[in-house]
Amino acid sequence: MKYTLSEDDIPTSWLNIAADFGGTAAPILDPATGEPVSREELARSMAEPLIEQELSTEPEFEIPGPVRDIYRQWRPTPMYRARRLERVLDTPARIYYKYEGVAPSGSLKPNSAVPQAYYNKQAGRTGLVTETGAGQWGTAIASAAAMFGLTAKVFMVGVSFRQKPYRRALMEAYGAVCSASPSPETAAGRAILAEDPDHPGSLGIAKSEAMEVAWANPELGYTRGSSLNHVCAHQTVIGQEAMAQMALADDYPDIVVGPCGGGSTLAGMCFPFLRDKLRGGREIRLIAAEPVACPTLTRGRIAYDHSDAARLTPLSRMHTLGHRFVPPPVHAGGLRAHDSSPLISRAVENGLMEAVALRQVAVFEAGIMFARAEGILPAPESSHAVRAAIDEALRCREEGRSKAILIALSGHGHFDLAAYEKYLSGTLPDDEPSEEVFQQGLDSIPQLATL
Amino acid sequence: MKYTLSEDDIPTSWLNIAADFGGTAAPILDPATGEPVSREELARSMAEPLIEQELSTEPEFEIPGPVRDIYRQWRPTPMYRARRLERVLDTPARIYYKYEGVAPSGSLKPNSAVPQAYYNKQAGRTGLVTETGAGQWGTAIASAAAMFGLTAKVFMVGVSFRQKPYRRALMEAYGAVCSASPSPETAAGRAILAEDPDHPGSLGIAKSEAMEVAWANPELGYTRGSSLNHVCAHQTVIGQEAMAQMALADDYPDIVVGPCGGGSTLAGMCFPFLRDKLRGGREIRLIAAEPVACPTLTRGRIAYDHSDAARLTPLSRMHTLGHRFVPPPVHAGGLRAHDSSPLISRAVENGLMEAVALRQVAVFEAGIMFARAEGILPAPESSHAVRAAIDEALRCREEGRSKAILIALSGHGHFDLAAYEKYLSGTLPDDEPSEEVFQQGLDSIPQLATL
Repeated sequence: MKYTLSEDDIPTSWLNIAADFGGTAAPILDPATGEPVSREELARSMAEPLIEQELSTEPEFEIPGPVRDIYRQWRPTPMYRARRLERVLDTPARIYYKYEGVAPSGSLKPNSAVPQAYYNKQAGRTGLVTETGAGQWGTAIASAAAMFGLTAKVFMVGVSFRQKPYRRALMEAYGAVCSASPSPETAAGRAILAEDPDHPGSLGIAKSEAMEVAWANPELGYTRGSSLNHVCAHQTVIGQEAMAQMALADDYPDIVVGPCGGGSTLAGMCFPFLRDKLRGGREIRLIAAEPVACPTLTRGRIAYDHSDAARLTPLSRMHTLGHRFVPPPVHAGGLRAHDSSPLISRAVENGLMEAVALRQVAVFEAGIMFARAEGILPAPESSHAVRAAIDEALRCREEGRSKAILIALSGHGHFDLAAYEKYLSGTLPDDEPSEEVFQQGLDSIPQLATL
Repeated sequence: MKYTLSEDDIPTSWLNIAADFGGTAAPILDPATGEPVSREELARSMAEPLIEQELSTEPEFEIPGPVRDIYRQWRPTPMYRARRLERVLDTPARIYYKYEGVAPSGSLKPNSAVPQAYYNKQAGRTGLVTETGAGQWGTAIASAAAMFGLTAKVFMVGVSFRQKPYRRALMEAYGAVCSASPSPETAAGRAILAEDPDHPGSLGIAKSEAMEVAWANPELGYTRGSSLNHVCAHQTVIGQEAMAQMALADDYPDIVVGPCGGGSTLAGMCFPFLRDKLRGGREIRLIAAEPVACPTLTRGRIAYDHSDAARLTPLSRMHTLGHRFVPPPVHAGGLRAHDSSPLISRAVENGLMEAVALRQVAVFEAGIMFARAEGILPAPESSHAVRAAIDEALRCREEGRSKAILIALSGHGHFDLAAYEKYLSGTLPDDEPSEEVFQQGLDSIPQLATL
């Protein structure tokens, strides 16, 4: 069953949960001085209105008309009751999922790519540069750039670039230029390649390359697909719509689950519910589902760290496995981030959100089960949330309790079939990082007096 | 701009245009006797309610409740005004497109796969068997079968099987078993392979294999993704919704274009408009866009012919290039059919519909132009309709006239990126069949007294 909103129900503003955390949000620090980073410094790579949002503690940002006009192409996205999956699981749980794969590029990423392209165009920049893991963000930026007549340059994590050649082809179809990272095009990339010519890449390295290109080309705007406060805010259109749709279903979630890499899917779905709870609304469990291969929230430390490997980004206070941590090449490329969103980290630290780490094979099993029951093959990132939801639904069965579980289904898995094929043929690995890899990452976290 | 319908606007019945063509519809003939084929003969492979619809001249068929419940997952599909494309073309034309790619499997095919699975389940069959070209139909059947607890066996045209390995993987993710056709699994396949072990396959050959398996296994229901009357009827949900959406836009199309292989996309979009016209409604041009590589409507003959290569199917009166015609391996696998829908053929013959044949490179150019302007990368099949629409829009510009043009955008091109990549690198061929290939096809058309 689908819960349908009209276009009039597309949110008119983005929610900024930083407002709800009070004035206690940790500042972003300049690594050279240890002092809060200046707006001028941020403006070297980012468009002004995005910096404004990033640093703001206002509770809401108005969505510009031209952005809302483009949102209309796929928003409001549908929310469904997964009745066939419930039957397969024989669970008393009521499972709902909100599906962002109906967006033209197949994931939630255009929710933030479109405003980022818009603000950069307004600011007079002629092109965008960014990094991408699995390719969902790169595709969204490529498409948004084309809509606004901007160029797009994307550094794609090497292992995903090779696992998913058609993601690159799709970005090129939109007119973007895409390189495997680490690449010989930047000093950051060349330094990594000198150490290891076959380096699989990481989001941290790809970020360094994109930042470096942005700094060297002031006409280009650097854009980020997750983690940052303004990206989390843009994604709250998901949760705002979901709240209205749960009301249509005459229900309210006991549990909300989302995949967590950088954290913007999870933030986008959960923060509206979290605000509701913080303002006296209903109790609710918010669960971050991450891979055991990159367990940032469950094994990382809360510390000031860089978001990129070459330490070009300022320092943020967040869960981190260390900027030199390189996770095994699991297929949920979008979840291979050593760091989390500072706002998600704050929510976890304050006990407002839980996290679970899941094994790759169990995650793909859940994805296949979902596809056969509900008709939609989830992206591996989304399958993490599906796995966590199925585990909760099975617990409901054991306990004989009915709970409402809401899944943030961030995108479809049409570009991840090589991975699903491996799962079906029994050759998908279940890699975890070694203790040595963890230690190497943790050792790279800067030692700062401030926390 | 999107024109949004509510779930209450999902059609409650399928339109059967055969009713509007009067009692003049040509019967399906048994090739052995030259007489109209019996229901018993058809029932060897097809479920009874589908045969009923196939032979009916009733104007409408009611959509069963369980089918309509599944339709709700993605219907009504959106219709858009392509304002950014209009600006790129600098045309006074008003271009609209109705997008079926929001269905879980990414194309219009579930509109017929779901009812076909439903009726077969009702009839007590335990599985489905079918053929697929580009893989859109096979994917839809795989998914629909999973929803109803049926097995699915799919013969996929060999050249597409090899061009698009991830289509097969997606079918397998849904639990289907997929073979490259011609295959060694059937007598029909073995006969072709004996002649040419590297045969690229064709829809006609894949149909023979699927029919053969259905006949040998009475518990399996044979299903067809296009051409047949009942498939065309199922797809009319598209055109019925589009008529309501054009009314929302306070407009009416002067021209409707759809891709044409078997013809179900085109039929689905056009037949509701055609009925309106035949009942005294507005004048309208209906355009079938087909590839020069397989120009069934523009170069074929109207004749009784088989729909499959091994002559297992009964004879239908339609445009045909001959059941032994094998088109070059163009990337719009869904349009590589030697025969057309008998109902489409009738519309063309009666001057109610036009046809144009388009070159592959020009088609891909249109697909890329559409993707960059509108954000959606069309399937190569759909790009045929986009090309034809762009040509009409450019004509509007030359003539300084504004016309409303409606495109049937049948699906997304996420599984066709190898082909788009070839186009972008300038290596996409523009093959046409040789005169010899045409002659070989035409020579295979049976000589019958009846026409």
